[in-house]
Amino acid sequence: MLDQIRDPQDMRDLTLLQLEQLSAEVRSEIIRVVSRNGGHLSASLGVVELTTALHHVFNTPEDRLIWDVGHQSYPHKILTGRREAMETLRQAGGASGFTHRHESPYDPFGAGHSSTSISAGLGMAAGARILGDKRHVIAVIGDGSMSAGMAYEALNNAGAMQARLIVILNDNDMSIAPPVGAMSAYLSRLLSSKSFLSFRELARGMASHLPKPLERTARRAEEYARSFVTGSGTLFEELGFYYVGPIDGHRMEHLVPVLRNVRDSDREGPVLIHVVTRKGMGYGPAEEAPDRYHGVSRFDIRTGEMETSKSQKPSYTSVFGRTLLHEATRDPSIVAITAAMPSGTGLDMFAEACPDRYFDVGIAEQHAVTFAAGLACEGLKPFVALYSSFLQRGFDQVVHDVALQKLPVRFGIDRAGFVGADGATHCGVFDMAFMGCIPDLVIACAADEADLVHMVHTAAAFNDGPFVIRYPRGEGVGVTLPEPPQILEIGKGRVVREGSRVAILSIGTRLETCLEAADTLAREGITPTVADARFMKPLDWDLIESLARSHEALLLVEEGSIGGFVSHVSTGLMNRGLLDSGALKVRGLYIPDEFFPHGTPASQRAAAGIDHTAIVATVREMIAPAAAVSDKKAARG
Amino acid sequence: MLDQIRDPQDMRDLTLLQLEQLSAEVRSEIIRVVSRNGGHLSASLGVVELTTALHHVFNTPEDRLIWDVGHQSYPHKILTGRREAMETLRQAGGASGFTHRHESPYDPFGAGHSSTSISAGLGMAAGARILGDKRHVIAVIGDGSMSAGMAYEALNNAGAMQARLIVILNDNDMSIAPPVGAMSAYLSRLLSSKSFLSFRELARGMASHLPKPLERTARRAEEYARSFVTGSGTLFEELGFYYVGPIDGHRMEHLVPVLRNVRDSDREGPVLIHVVTRKGMGYGPAEEAPDRYHGVSRFDIRTGEMETSKSQKPSYTSVFGRTLLHEATRDPSIVAITAAMPSGTGLDMFAEACPDRYFDVGIAEQHAVTFAAGLACEGLKPFVALYSSFLQRGFDQVVHDVALQKLPVRFGIDRAGFVGADGATHCGVFDMAFMGCIPDLVIACAADEADLVHMVHTAAAFNDGPFVIRYPRGEGVGVTLPEPPQILEIGKGRVVREGSRVAILSIGTRLETCLEAADTLAREGITPTVADARFMKPLDWDLIESLARSHEALLLVEEGSIGGFVSHVSTGLMNRGLLDSGALKVRGLYIPDEFFPHGTPASQRAAAGIDHTAIVATVREMIAPAAAVSDKKAARG
Repeated sequence: MLDQIRDPQDMRDLTLLQLEQLSAEVRSEIIRVVSRNGGHLSASLGVVELTTALHHVFNTPEDRLIWDVGHQSYPHKILTGRREAMETLRQAGGASGFTHRHESPYDPFGAGHSSTSISAGLGMAAGARILGDKRHVIAVIGDGSMSAGMAYEALNNAGAMQARLIVILNDNDMSIAPPVGAMSAYLSRLLSSKSFLSFRELARGMASHLPKPLERTARRAEEYARSFVTGSGTLFEELGFYYVGPIDGHRMEHLVPVLRNVRDSDREGPVLIHVVTRKGMGYGPAEEAPDRYHGVSRFDIRTGEMETSKSQKPSYTSVFGRTLLHEATRDPSIVAITAAMPSGTGLDMFAEACPDRYFDVGIAEQHAVTFAAGLACEGLKPFVALYSSFLQRGFDQVVHDVALQKLPVRFGIDRAGFVGADGATHCGVFDMAFMGCIPDLVIACAADEADLVHMVHTAAAFNDGPFVIRYPRGEGVGVTLPEPPQILEIGKGRVVREGSRVAILSIGTRLETCLEAADTLAREGITPTVADARFMKPLDWDLIESLARSHEALLLVEEGSIGGFVSHVSTGLMNRGLLDSGALKVRGLYIPDEFFPHGTPASQRAAAGIDHTAIVATVREMIAPAAAVSDKKAARG
Repeated sequence: MLDQIRDPQDMRDLTLLQLEQLSAEVRSEIIRVVSRNGGHLSASLGVVELTTALHHVFNTPEDRLIWDVGHQSYPHKILTGRREAMETLRQAGGASGFTHRHESPYDPFGAGHSSTSISAGLGMAAGARILGDKRHVIAVIGDGSMSAGMAYEALNNAGAMQARLIVILNDNDMSIAPPVGAMSAYLSRLLSSKSFLSFRELARGMASHLPKPLERTARRAEEYARSFVTGSGTLFEELGFYYVGPIDGHRMEHLVPVLRNVRDSDREGPVLIHVVTRKGMGYGPAEEAPDRYHGVSRFDIRTGEMETSKSQKPSYTSVFGRTLLHEATRDPSIVAITAAMPSGTGLDMFAEACPDRYFDVGIAEQHAVTFAAGLACEGLKPFVALYSSFLQRGFDQVVHDVALQKLPVRFGIDRAGFVGADGATHCGVFDMAFMGCIPDLVIACAADEADLVHMVHTAAAFNDGPFVIRYPRGEGVGVTLPEPPQILEIGKGRVVREGSRVAILSIGTRLETCLEAADTLAREGITPTVADARFMKPLDWDLIESLARSHEALLLVEEGSIGGFVSHVSTGLMNRGLLDSGALKVRGLYIPDEFFPHGTPASQRAAAGIDHTAIVATVREMIAPAAAVSDKKAARG
């Protein structure tokens, strides 16, 4: 069946039975592909029938179908001409793990971060109205994504605009972790209310009493759907939506007629269809542990067993989580805050050990930051752990609620730098620029996992203002963890290796690569000094000036964008007159001003020119007798 | 009466009659002070009775009272020991126009941006629970602020946490402009529902039938309040709040007993008290035009007539608004988006002329940006006009939804740079850093109002990706507006005045000051070249290299933070080898890495060292025979 589907055009005339058959094949295909490549499994398995039904009923890509977050888009990709590309899913050059406008006309909006779909869809619906287009716009959003303020802002606007927008609430009672918040509790109450139960029972009764074939059942279901009385007085109706549901999202004979009805209705204004699905549906291990199978590595289909890394090195995330918990057992004023990422940030250990001091606020980074500010006002010591790219959502709150009031909120910025397979949406490359410009922050960047332990310890002790710790995705370098940890001097870097002529000043985990590059250079007779700035803010000007005055060349290295560490240091060198005499040549390696697609972190660093090769080559050039700046570097502004 | 109130302790035993008398005096005081200094009038007048009642009933500052936005905090300030400081309201050294932790122990949380109060209050309530403190936390938030996602994130979290938090919804059916969104419509329906009407009628009935004095009426009202049946099934109750209201926010005999009841209740979990007030209450002109009297200049109390600026120079905001409207009349694909600031951004003209292409999405910057991205997907040309400091709330959406997809969304960044009396919360000093690091943006910075016209015209024509235009608060320099406007070459700067030895490269509206400084220097025999970079991104490297090669000194000037224009240029100069030889000395003037309190924009620029004096002094130093960098400059990192 699936072999005959080149694109959704081929699905428009399929029977319900055929759609069910197709769904089963798509499900097998997803399990097979993800077992080989890793990826987001549970979410995609949960929406197989919904995806099939949507492409059957709606005229995609003319009708716009937007998948919130996009991690549940594998069935969509398989059905929209990307079955082959899925074989190299999330690998360099292969299909993205999320939707992507450049990948297919069936992806009208790219995603990666959550809760953007209603806003984007409302924009498209408003555009269609202005242009006089009659197309449908459908945004599919999970219940977990509904905790984000952005989704509410869009609902609030859509309800008032009376736009022609269809929102499908994919209610699987899960985000990545179990969902939190009053909205989630509300949805559970809604489901346990009479309407859903009676609809389910009625449908079951219909199915058992009506004669086969299924087609006739379906026709009757459709008749039923036409008369389907929607729950009234729901929260969504208060916000101006016409509410339809709840509907069993795995039964084609319920989905198709309801979607057809909504499609053909003349009603003005936005519609919300509440569809209930099961995350991991159809694959036993994933159904039983949908959070464990949310994002997976390669696994054995038969047993569900995942390939585990053979490394003995702990991840930065786990070192952060364990160290913070250790600090919290000694200091009862430490509290921890996550925005729906308990295990992704290593706070799951904290949650288990200190549930009274642990807060999962949902996908709500704006609130997470200001909530922490409120806790700090009362003398508690909040640690907010967020991914770098998600912290972008809390930027104003860091400026306005934390820094401006000098409140001692601690930030653990995880996934700083390149992240590999998740691609550009998840790259943590901007935080050095957008946090670096905020006054009164301390920003510490861990060079290895031992440093991270020191930094968490230092942040716990430091109570004079905000304290930021930055560390990357993935495993550490394998150094011994310090016991006991030390309190670092704020704003002090360190010389890691003494050398001559050229100095390399690194920030964060680029240090290891800088040391390896120094080894390579040493074999050529060049022995660079290697230093670790340790603090992006305040910068250690004693160290930098000393390096500048005692070397003829200084190379700055960071895993961040323009406007960050390299930019701050070069601005300071210039304004302090350290570049006036021509006695010092300085170059900076940072992530060039472009977005980098998914791949491995190593391939991304190579493409960005911040890897071993680039460091060695730049040092060689800098101290060559007639050092010419290569064209490649000159082109980088 | 007011003369006897040193702080809220003195209000605890007052009678209702005395509280009403006190309110009347506070109201007069606000009108008097604001008529002399200007400031936020309507919002403060609307909450006089509420403020008085809150400080009477609650044990502030032990009980935490948080004012959302803070522009309605004048009665609060007058009653909490800052009556004198109000005489120099919003002037350098005088009382801030918002709440401020450093100003008073009665301000537990500073504000300026909207919709932060519930998050902060929930953090404080969570902190109190951990510490075993029994204090109350009260967040007062307007209905306009409820359109922001951040408020919803906090409600959602509070409802689930069952925190001991009191939210007072100050429903005046206004934000700065009339409120928009489904929530606003919902609140209106709630008000017109039976419960409020009947409560009003009952209360009125009680008042007219019961014997005087007022105190007995009050006792009866209190009895009534105890048995007050709250509206059930409200949206807030679905979100886990206990809903009380609606209550007339100008009647002390309703406010006090209800607040007392809530204070003394043993109920667990958050409470929302819905209080209905009138913006501008008690001052005729403000009641009639609350938006006009939202933020006012000095005015005549008798007539309500405001002092108007005598300048003939148009504001950047009005030039932006008029030019965009002009473009839109020729190009039907242009659409405009504001986040609750129609007149503040100059889009009110657009709204009137092209209502079908105008969108006020409410206080919802995240949604505003992604909504615009959706419009751009459909081929429309969206212009999103936001204040620089409010754009901080949409940062992730600019990265993730606009830039990453190279969507041609246009941003008008108003209030870029210092803003004067509104102080640090409203300063637009970070956008060069946080927008500058995002790949694929074009960032144009208007040097004067003629340039702004060209830039709006250019942005309308440019359709290859995102286009940002940055311009400041206040009036232009008075140049003639171009007719017809030109399409600027992207990424091209211009030499404005040819000189020798030293070049000054300015970005944005610092150009005028740079030219004046050049005049001053010319009288000393120094004739600097003055150039306008015009584009922060992409930088004009032909121009910069040419200036670098033909001068011995180069001064960079911007009105933005570290990490912005100066940092980008210095990084590029360094990496291109232009600083290797010692033939060029470069310095950068930017806003130092600190927050600047309220004052005039001129005083803020002087304090920041980016004014005429600083430019002249720095140029002198740079080309002095043995140019020594002064200590002051060396200290700036």
